[in-house]
Amino acid sequence: LDVPPRAEPISKLPEELRDHLTREFVHTSSVTMPAASDILLEPPMERGEMKPRSSEECSFASVSDRQKHERFFYDAVKILLEDAVFKGTSRSNKVLEWRDPIKLMQLLDLKLEDSPVTHDKLLALMKDTIQYSVKTGHPYFVNQLFSSVDPYGLIGQWLGDALNPSVYTYEVSPVFTLMEETVLSEMRKIVGFTTGDGIFCPGGSIANGYAISCARYHKLPQVKTQGLHGLPRLVLYTSADAHYSIKKMAVLQGIGSDNVCLIKTDKRGKMDVNDLQCKINETIKEGAVPFMVSATAGTTVLGAFDPITQIADICRTHKLWLHVDAAWGGGALISKKYKHLLNGIERADSVTWNPHKLLTAPQQCSTFLTRHPDILSACHSANATYLFQKDKFYDTKYDTGDKHI
Amino acid sequence: LDVPPRAEPISKLPEELRDHLTREFVHTSSVTMPAASDILLEPPMERGEMKPRSSEECSFASVSDRQKHERFFYDAVKILLEDAVFKGTSRSNKVLEWRDPIKLMQLLDLKLEDSPVTHDKLLALMKDTIQYSVKTGHPYFVNQLFSSVDPYGLIGQWLGDALNPSVYTYEVSPVFTLMEETVLSEMRKIVGFTTGDGIFCPGGSIANGYAISCARYHKLPQVKTQGLHGLPRLVLYTSADAHYSIKKMAVLQGIGSDNVCLIKTDKRGKMDVNDLQCKINETIKEGAVPFMVSATAGTTVLGAFDPITQIADICRTHKLWLHVDAAWGGGALISKKYKHLLNGIERADSVTWNPHKLLTAPQQCSTFLTRHPDILSACHSANATYLFQKDKFYDTKYDTGDKHI
Repeated sequence: LDVPPRAEPISKLPEELRDHLTREFVHTSSVTMPAASDILLEPPMERGEMKPRSSEECSFASVSDRQKHERFFYDAVKILLEDAVFKGTSRSNKVLEWRDPIKLMQLLDLKLEDSPVTHDKLLALMKDTIQYSVKTGHPYFVNQLFSSVDPYGLIGQWLGDALNPSVYTYEVSPVFTLMEETVLSEMRKIVGFTTGDGIFCPGGSIANGYAISCARYHKLPQVKTQGLHGLPRLVLYTSADAHYSIKKMAVLQGIGSDNVCLIKTDKRGKMDVNDLQCKINETIKEGAVPFMVSATAGTTVLGAFDPITQIADICRTHKLWLHVDAAWGGGALISKKYKHLLNGIERADSVTWNPHKLLTAPQQCSTFLTRHPDILSACHSANATYLFQKDKFYDTKYDTGDKHI
Repeated sequence: LDVPPRAEPISKLPEELRDHLTREFVHTSSVTMPAASDILLEPPMERGEMKPRSSEECSFASVSDRQKHERFFYDAVKILLEDAVFKGTSRSNKVLEWRDPIKLMQLLDLKLEDSPVTHDKLLALMKDTIQYSVKTGHPYFVNQLFSSVDPYGLIGQWLGDALNPSVYTYEVSPVFTLMEETVLSEMRKIVGFTTGDGIFCPGGSIANGYAISCARYHKLPQVKTQGLHGLPRLVLYTSADAHYSIKKMAVLQGIGSDNVCLIKTDKRGKMDVNDLQCKINETIKEGAVPFMVSATAGTTVLGAFDPITQIADICRTHKLWLHVDAAWGGGALISKKYKHLLNGIERADSVTWNPHKLLTAPQQCSTFLTRHPDILSACHSANATYLFQKDKFYDTKYDTGDKHI
């Protein structure tokens, strides 16, 4: 299976691979004609390219073909817009039609088929999927820290899907690379960073993980090559009400959950800075090394904002990386009335901010922002030469993939 | 900003948050009437709900409204299908209309606006985005280990976007939770695991990271609480041609790049098992602890398949976790002619397999599969009680989120 590493016409691929991309496993089945009400929205018929629907061929074709797929695409979009977007977000309908897992498995035909099914069967399955799914864009869906199906965000996602990009280098994703940097740069300005860097992450948990990774590297750069073995015991601090991802990512990164020091909160759920100072002193007495505080701007359950300015003062004293997990509460930065809740965030070393939460961008839209312009590259680059070589015919500062894990 | 943790009608939210979700910043601008050729596909006009297009209002509305958005949705879908899907995948068009970053920034209007723009402006920006993006579904786009915009996969993505789910618990994502387990279970069967577990990952890199995490926990479970400090030096092995994510994730996880031992490859790019055996012996002599081999099924540049059976024998002897990074080559498992290349994969402890590569599923579709049924939970659970409590009114084995990082 020695596929050449450079682009070749599909005709030069080994036969079976080529077949995989183009072959269609066709069988014919009879399907009933659709009711008139189902054809409110028809694809352009004047082209005369549509097959009659009554003897529909089924296929596993992986390349979109106007003749085979145009009607399916438009029928599917009609269902999506009607059922999921318009009806699914109307106050007169339910957020969820609840079924127990066992019952739902009986109601839905989830079994994997050996042969292709008709487009009508697929459309029916789509309708079922919508019917029994939670309508997260419904105005009454507000308890999971995200909501809304923003119409422009939705079309933006559909655009991304239709182009199916991978955004690791400029050459493979020129437009999206520039879009990302435009948005990240604006977000850094809003945070108050005058310089820095940022990346989009698969979720707020991973964004918090980037903070731990950068903080650790900033304190002890040799961790990149040597690992934690042989280094002092590192301790990070976050409030008892912080998101569970801080602990999860500390476990993943070999810090260990015992070295995630949970700081007391006051009755409103804010971090107690006196307790923070005490715990840092204890760590130092134990001979371990404090390296990071993760403050939370908008805790998960209570929505509390930690006192960032006071925490920043402590971090300055002890040379600790200050991270602000503003995954949820970051949205308040664009509110004149509430942005004071994040006072001091401009002094942070890094920030997690998820526009898919309070700003109703589609999921996932999670960002990691830092005021250190070079640390993401320094901390994470592996310099894979086949992808991130530096002798390209354009400025490779736009190849951002090597900053990522 | 004390938003209640439980679902509440939007009317009970603090005023400014409610405003954010519903307010529209409206201004009016004159737009030109569309040409007749632009109206091939009109949304259903008989409802009489559409506004005249010539005095279009602009808004930042975050809730889809039929009157305001229906025509925009259908106009956008028409552009997506025509330009990105049909024309973008036709052999008679280019894979990419290349522009240098500086030139492209001049051609595209990427600046962020203070006020809303018209739908026509948005549609024009979409057309520009498609024009200057790489058409990854084009038959000549084959050098990045993924290709095709599968028509059924595309609609599946659009469905997911329209429902905008978060798939961490059954209650918030009943249908997708069951779908995921159906697919993962079938993939485990194809690999040859008779029991086990699996999760979808944000990409193959993270999937490989799960392997390192599980392997490390399997060898030394105390790593979860204590971290790597104070534990023996851990070493993992992979071939010199393995994907860079093995090193990246080992760095992230505190193993250190020096402890990623690169094994020689033969002239076809396959791992040299004699060198593997030698390197393991050296590690043991140094007093460090070998814990994992990551074999590759389909290397990035040469497409080589490491000899899994021989590697599995060595792993058994030394009690090492065997991971197979089949992100790309896993697709060969469904080929009668080529599945022998992965002989022995059923003996692996874990497998990375990305259907978005050789199987042309949309990006990202990356999976981590393991034959150990409980290790993902044991290794990663944080038991966040507000989300993953066990006293729910359904079987919480369907709440899979706590297995994830």
